[in-house]
Amino acid sequence: MTVPERISALRSLMEEKGYDVYLVPTDDSHQSEYVGEYFKARAFITGFTGSAGTAVITKTDAGLWTDGRYFIQAAAQLEGSGITLFKAGQPDVPTIEAYITDVIPEGGTLGFDGRVVAMGQGQALKAALAAKNARIDYSEDLIDRIWEDRPALSTKPAFALSVEYTGESTADKLSRIREAMKKEGADVHILAALDDICWTTNLRGNDIEYFPLLLSYAVITMDDMKLYVDETKLTAEMKESLAKDGISIHPYNAVYEDIKGLSAKDGVLVDPSRLNYALYNNIPKEAKVIEQMNPEVLMKAMKNDTELKNIVNAHIKDGTAVTRFMCWLKKNIGKTEITEISAAKKLDSFRREQEGYLWQSFEPICGSGEHGAIVHYAATPETNVPVTTNGLFLTDTGGGYMEGSTDITRTFAFGELTDRMKEDFTTVLLCNLHLARAVFPHGISGFNLDAMARTPAWERGMDYNHGTGHGVGYLMNIHEAPAGFRCAVREKERNILEPGMVITNEPGIYIEGSHGIRIENEMIVRKGPKTEYGQFLYFEPITYVPIDLDAVDPDMMKQEDKDQLNAYHEKVYELISPHLNDEEKEWLKEYTRAI
Amino acid sequence: MTVPERISALRSLMEEKGYDVYLVPTDDSHQSEYVGEYFKARAFITGFTGSAGTAVITKTDAGLWTDGRYFIQAAAQLEGSGITLFKAGQPDVPTIEAYITDVIPEGGTLGFDGRVVAMGQGQALKAALAAKNARIDYSEDLIDRIWEDRPALSTKPAFALSVEYTGESTADKLSRIREAMKKEGADVHILAALDDICWTTNLRGNDIEYFPLLLSYAVITMDDMKLYVDETKLTAEMKESLAKDGISIHPYNAVYEDIKGLSAKDGVLVDPSRLNYALYNNIPKEAKVIEQMNPEVLMKAMKNDTELKNIVNAHIKDGTAVTRFMCWLKKNIGKTEITEISAAKKLDSFRREQEGYLWQSFEPICGSGEHGAIVHYAATPETNVPVTTNGLFLTDTGGGYMEGSTDITRTFAFGELTDRMKEDFTTVLLCNLHLARAVFPHGISGFNLDAMARTPAWERGMDYNHGTGHGVGYLMNIHEAPAGFRCAVREKERNILEPGMVITNEPGIYIEGSHGIRIENEMIVRKGPKTEYGQFLYFEPITYVPIDLDAVDPDMMKQEDKDQLNAYHEKVYELISPHLNDEEKEWLKEYTRAI
Repeated sequence: MTVPERISALRSLMEEKGYDVYLVPTDDSHQSEYVGEYFKARAFITGFTGSAGTAVITKTDAGLWTDGRYFIQAAAQLEGSGITLFKAGQPDVPTIEAYITDVIPEGGTLGFDGRVVAMGQGQALKAALAAKNARIDYSEDLIDRIWEDRPALSTKPAFALSVEYTGESTADKLSRIREAMKKEGADVHILAALDDICWTTNLRGNDIEYFPLLLSYAVITMDDMKLYVDETKLTAEMKESLAKDGISIHPYNAVYEDIKGLSAKDGVLVDPSRLNYALYNNIPKEAKVIEQMNPEVLMKAMKNDTELKNIVNAHIKDGTAVTRFMCWLKKNIGKTEITEISAAKKLDSFRREQEGYLWQSFEPICGSGEHGAIVHYAATPETNVPVTTNGLFLTDTGGGYMEGSTDITRTFAFGELTDRMKEDFTTVLLCNLHLARAVFPHGISGFNLDAMARTPAWERGMDYNHGTGHGVGYLMNIHEAPAGFRCAVREKERNILEPGMVITNEPGIYIEGSHGIRIENEMIVRKGPKTEYGQFLYFEPITYVPIDLDAVDPDMMKQEDKDQLNAYHEKVYELISPHLNDEEKEWLKEYTRAI
Repeated sequence: MTVPERISALRSLMEEKGYDVYLVPTDDSHQSEYVGEYFKARAFITGFTGSAGTAVITKTDAGLWTDGRYFIQAAAQLEGSGITLFKAGQPDVPTIEAYITDVIPEGGTLGFDGRVVAMGQGQALKAALAAKNARIDYSEDLIDRIWEDRPALSTKPAFALSVEYTGESTADKLSRIREAMKKEGADVHILAALDDICWTTNLRGNDIEYFPLLLSYAVITMDDMKLYVDETKLTAEMKESLAKDGISIHPYNAVYEDIKGLSAKDGVLVDPSRLNYALYNNIPKEAKVIEQMNPEVLMKAMKNDTELKNIVNAHIKDGTAVTRFMCWLKKNIGKTEITEISAAKKLDSFRREQEGYLWQSFEPICGSGEHGAIVHYAATPETNVPVTTNGLFLTDTGGGYMEGSTDITRTFAFGELTDRMKEDFTTVLLCNLHLARAVFPHGISGFNLDAMARTPAWERGMDYNHGTGHGVGYLMNIHEAPAGFRCAVREKERNILEPGMVITNEPGIYIEGSHGIRIENEMIVRKGPKTEYGQFLYFEPITYVPIDLDAVDPDMMKQEDKDQLNAYHEKVYELISPHLNDEEKEWLKEYTRAI
């Protein structure tokens, strides 16, 4: 079927159901940032394959909303489909809510699959539609009836992390969760966010590419926990272990009916940003709904000592792989053919040599020259180019290890750089160093510190159009709530910084058509001195790979900046050199020299 | 009448009205930060005279809630009154809402004067009381019926500011306000905040000590503006000018009935944080209420070029007065008797010599030695002490001039300082300099920059328990929304920084029982370069008084810090020395020397 044929088939079903408008978003049923193949309904109905976008189909029109990252790609992929591109955020482009409210007839019906619409978006739509006395029917996934060769839900097996990796048993985690529920007056706690459930059960899955999450829902009460999951993914041993912790197994989709049976006197704890609209609406109207950030979010973000020890180990392994890759690049550039894609493969091959390495922790971004300026660039066979022999090569990659996930960006210099490139590189380096040396009392959030990173760029009249950092999950999501570095106050990131959090520090500068630079280290939030003014915190960088001195202009750096960089490089040499051969070791000595 | 007699009289009236609980807050009818004598009902009913507190009286009990600044004072003043002190914010102390909801009987009635309760607080009470099916009667001020010698509402005359002071006529301001109303879909705009109204009308009053505001309400439509004010305060000339701008005069309290007559089809723009509960509830239920920050708030905060020119002039005058005061202190300390109170008077006498000086812009804080560590200290005859001849003297004072208001803190050093004092002083100086040199793009808020000021203190394990700065009104409120410097995100202060705003920069360090240090300069937000990354902004300090070099340890400062301080002191000498006599000039040369 072509896209127009699919839309036409959808309109027939809309007619049958009495829908005036049908909405197809990008989400899965768990508000995951990345979704499995089964959930790519919006790509199916529009032909647009970007990671963010929402389709709205009416009886006569069809539109796709996406953001600035995808304007060019979407325009190309929508060509000939009859679907209008709505450039979200541009002046005079209506929001989805405003558009639907405008086009829907008085008393009309908006349909969508309530499992893939976030609770908050559903509520916003409901509120907007009130102006037209229009209703929502969230009961059916019409795309499923058209999509003949729809990929099945993933059936890949789960795997378990022992306490030597997680540092805390499920029993202990459940006991902490129940304490938190009591404090909020909750008897029942509904979980749909995959990482919250994986953290609680110490299970992982293979249901989303790169992100080892297990498709599931959970309902926790004071006495038991129901885990809604495809049972065939679990081994007998896992089931036995779950049963021992009072966790029973139920079919994946049975949660929707089960929720309807909650008692009217139940206090039900849910997280509005981590629940879908259908689940939320299936909670009996009489129940007392307590809307709060899931307690698992903060528990998970504050890594325990075992996790932190493991994560540092993962970074030594990953640092060894990336350092060897850097050495290989420096020695081979201009001698062998190296492309963006082949470089990424080479880096993966270095990582594969490390014990406990599983897979890349996200889709690698390897952009040479002007490709480095495209913030979300991922090379395809069509865009792939040889790595520049005179310029900059940006690589933002990561590895998933049993000891945790890594996320590192290094920008490498080859041949002759322009003064401008060195100036920009050194500015980004200064941004990174500025944030890394912050010392602050408990109570401070990322939006308080983000400007510290940006100051060296701001002083040159420059800036970068993304946050400075995000939390990193332990073999789960690479972007993990509830803390990060960003000037704007986002609900999902506004938590104060807590000891044990692992957060990236990744400022950048992007010069369209020329070069892009980003330098990213992960950092652990550590306890510093405790004084009468409170518990002070600081950052410990745990990414151990040289920052390319070939691109640094020392004259732009103050002595304190140099001291900080030199101390960091000394640490890199100390931790990584034991894992290198003599030739690599000698090379590393040079690239971690004091400046 | 004693306080117990007053409470007993109040209970009789509560009985008559059928009230179970009666609430008496500190506010006036305009949510002003400081209130006139007429509005001090809470002080009347409890005997507690602090600037913040709320009384709750039931049939059997009476309680007063206040914050940490006043625990000691309140305990002393409540002694023997039978009123229980509730230390707000302490563990196990219920909030006012929780307490009332707990003690009120099922289906009971809470009474208060809805004119002195903020809309938000009234709504919170209403929501809390729903659990007990209790109602609110906000119709009567019972205190007024007991308070026999209640001070009359102020009848002091208003005064007008000509366009040479305000830079914009009322007609032009109204035209901008109506544009903003149109944009929000509003036909009617209700104003209760005194500074919003004074800014619009270019009038000032004398109705609150130190703050030249005019008690009034206003209702703006597309065609006219109704000003609710005691007509006797206005001259014939003012009335004529108002009439020319389509502004009609109505009795102060007539607004409450007038509001009830709004049409059901009206869009009514109100600011939830700048309106009282009675006014809000008098808006017909059918009207469409648009809740938004008053457009006047931002317009007022972004001073125009005329205002900025005047404000700088006011600061040159004020800087001359405070510099002469500093010189006088340095030359006379230990020779003549100088106390906290006499020093404040002397400073006021230097200000009085300046043309266009009206009065102090707030109650002066002059704390010698350990008194400097009490953040809200105001000397009384009982606490007054001689200014130390060996230590630090903190003065936070300001002047109201026709060209605007000033707010300056200087901490002066006399005799021998301890190393600790110099270290603390230099730390505070570094905090001030750090924030003052920030450069940042349009779009940034105070909560993004506050940490920059604190970093030098944080690096020493220290902090200060107040915001780093607040907006300053033009001969109105000394604390002006909607921007400031604070790590926490407060609704009233979260606006982005805009060119033309005037904000203070006042970090401090307070060592209980020893000394307090604060260094405060006002700063104008100025436009810097505009690049492809946006319009960059920076701060121009406009307070021109030496920072006492006797307390500075240059070894704690980097060269860039010294350069910045030296440039500031050079500017102080350049602007202030022409207004000094030769002896003062010579002294200033020494105290603005490069270090």
